[in-house]
Amino acid sequence: MYEDDFGRPGLSHMTVAGATHHGMKEIEVWLQTFAPGVGTPIHRHSCEEVFIVQKGKGSLYTEAEAGKKYPGKPNEFMISLNTTFTIPVNRVHQVKNTEVEGDLQVLVIVSGPPIKVFVYKDWHTPHAAAVLQFPYPWDAPCLQHEKGNFESDYVFDEL
Amino acid sequence: MYEDDFGRPGLSHMTVAGATHHGMKEIEVWLQTFAPGVGTPIHRHSCEEVFIVQKGKGSLYTEAEAGKKYPGKPNEFMISLNTTFTIPVNRVHQVKNTEVEGDLQVLVIVSGPPIKVFVYKDWHTPHAAAVLQFPYPWDAPCLQHEKGNFESDYVFDEL
Repeated sequence: MYEDDFGRPGLSHMTVAGATHHGMKEIEVWLQTFAPGVGTPIHRHSCEEVFIVQKGKGSLYTEAEAGKKYPGKPNEFMISLNTTFTIPVNRVHQVKNTEVEGDLQVLVIVSGPPIKVFVYKDWHTPHAAAVLQFPYPWDAPCLQHEKGNFESDYVFDEL
Repeated sequence: MYEDDFGRPGLSHMTVAGATHHGMKEIEVWLQTFAPGVGTPIHRHSCEEVFIVQKGKGSLYTEAEAGKKYPGKPNEFMISLNTTFTIPVNRVHQVKNTEVEGDLQVLVIVSGPPIKVFVYKDWHTPHAAAVLQFPYPWDAPCLQHEKGNFESDYVFDEL
């Protein structure tokens, strides 16, 4: 289990149980830590997600009303130690450390790895303009590795 | 979120994110606490499972060698705070608080609810003699509830 910011200053991501390292096919578990002012992008994905706050405080923002062309002004929920929340499939959301000091740490559980994430520039970005990020940063080396394995298996079969 | 022992003295089970209460379809999250000497039954299931130890100490026992007619003498792993382990699909296993004092608390994540569990009397019970428990105790009221809803919807459609 290794820790990296994956190019996002103020983020610490660890895959606790993942597709590549532990052969998970149906669920992944991550431990993510956000420095003050740092959060996830505004995003949606077609998997189920559960967050459990491990330490710190922050806010969860979720799309207030589905079915419009863009998310619009979100609902805000205060989160702190042991706050648990589930994100419905394709609901646009963001988790952010809104404090001026102290880390926000969350345990994240997602279904159906590897995750496909659509990222929004802001809450008025049209759903159709959200940008697919796949593979997601922490899955990239894993997928590369799997691809490598697949190719060598394929070559081996031809011999 | 409510706590119950579901007829198992020394167990505290809470469904943190579940099919009925939170509409989960792909993952469930439970918080389980075992008193000294108390553990899960010896069992297997066809879902993926991740455990994260929240407090206390104990042992994880897993089938040492798959492919036999019965599990046989298991491997034993010591577990304590933050120990994380994944259980492969259909691997026979048991988690137990082996201490003489202090609770063992684990966060449990499973895929594909509702879970179907095959319970073994001991480690020499043949796989074919393991007993299916379905619905599992904490899913029983939920399934009953869903069945109830389904029936009334059905009646409603006929009117």
